[in-house]
Amino acid sequence: MQHVFTVQGMTCGHCERAVTQAVQGVDDQAQVKIDRAAQRVEVDSSASREALGAAIAEEGYKVA
Amino acid sequence: MQHVFTVQGMTCGHCERAVTQAVQGVDDQAQVKIDRAAQRVEVDSSASREALGAAIAEEGYKVA
Repeated sequence: MQHVFTVQGMTCGHCERAVTQAVQGVDDQAQVKIDRAAQRVEVDSSASREALGAAIAEEGYKVA
Repeated sequence: MQHVFTVQGMTCGHCERAVTQAVQGVDDQAQVKIDRAAQRVEVDSSASREALGAAIAEEGYKVA
């Protein structure tokens, strides 16, 4: 299932990696596509939206 | 010996870590202090300024 998040605070490529790893910590099969300029994170995963969003937020980013 | 660099492009804590690791890849005993807002990186190390600056630049940051 595809989930689209608006994520604030990603400033660089390291942040994209941190978000990707946070998501894949919940579901290691998750596909993640990030458009940093648009603050857009697309996740294709069988995990719940809540779990995915919580993992991104725990990494220190604001999930809008 | 203390070296002070002006480093542009550090946007977040991950970047500080990347710069610190780059410096410590040259000299694992190096002490690193970073003031990101001031773009200031202080390194206490026996390595040469050239080697330290090159390592930071290789990480993708502009050493002014």
